[in-house]
Amino acid sequence: MPKTTAKLTKRDLALLRGKNFAHLATVMPDGSPQVTPVWIDERDGLILVNTAKGRIKPRNVARDPRVALSVQDAENPYVMTAIRGEVLRVTEDGAEEHIDALSRRYHGRDYPSHGDRVIFEIEPRHIARMGHGADGE
Amino acid sequence: MPKTTAKLTKRDLALLRGKNFAHLATVMPDGSPQVTPVWIDERDGLILVNTAKGRIKPRNVARDPRVALSVQDAENPYVMTAIRGEVLRVTEDGAEEHIDALSRRYHGRDYPSHGDRVIFEIEPRHIARMGHGADGE
Repeated sequence: MPKTTAKLTKRDLALLRGKNFAHLATVMPDGSPQVTPVWIDERDGLILVNTAKGRIKPRNVARDPRVALSVQDAENPYVMTAIRGEVLRVTEDGAEEHIDALSRRYHGRDYPSHGDRVIFEIEPRHIARMGHGADGE
Repeated sequence: MPKTTAKLTKRDLALLRGKNFAHLATVMPDGSPQVTPVWIDERDGLILVNTAKGRIKPRNVARDPRVALSVQDAENPYVMTAIRGEVLRVTEDGAEEHIDALSRRYHGRDYPSHGDRVIFEIEPRHIARMGHGADGE
């Protein structure tokens, strides 16, 4: 995986900030992959995923920060962005407010229960796209 | 990852046979994960993914057959199945007919171009579910 940050285009950002699910892959202790759907967000060129301590993903990421995610446009699944990258930081800072913001975007209301939320801050390193048009925007 | 086959429930089968996308994760040469959306199918308890020779996924699977996939119900994304498993076989047998059958299901027509298609036959080993109801069916 390259070590330099890959730049998100306008269409990547629209996918990451819209009401679309991402599917986030992490690496299990035995080196096999694991993937589940997640809510998704973006800030300052980093991709944000909000999860809870004690789940499989934070345990995997603590051991191996390399992740991948793919996100389709809910209106047109043939528009998609697939990203490989690395979790630079796992933080509790603002994680409760962030899960509420995500819940309002996806559900139209605050998140029903709180506690132990953490944010993955993911640096994109490699990006593949489909259906974005020739200009990449 | 367990070595025994995990059994697909009726609701898993409905997800895998419906007009839903799966997101298939494989392992890159450096051990990092990779994930993209794919059409999905099921036969005799195995999960089928149709891809083309020379792409990243067949190269990854030839080196490490361990994969993961998650699939959401297109009508209700909070109904989902996440599977970890292993590609038991990569075969050209019936792969052209199979991509046409998938294309008819997803697009309502045959696949526009053929050649070099292969099918991954994936044995499910571990299954996680959300929104399936208490009976697991």
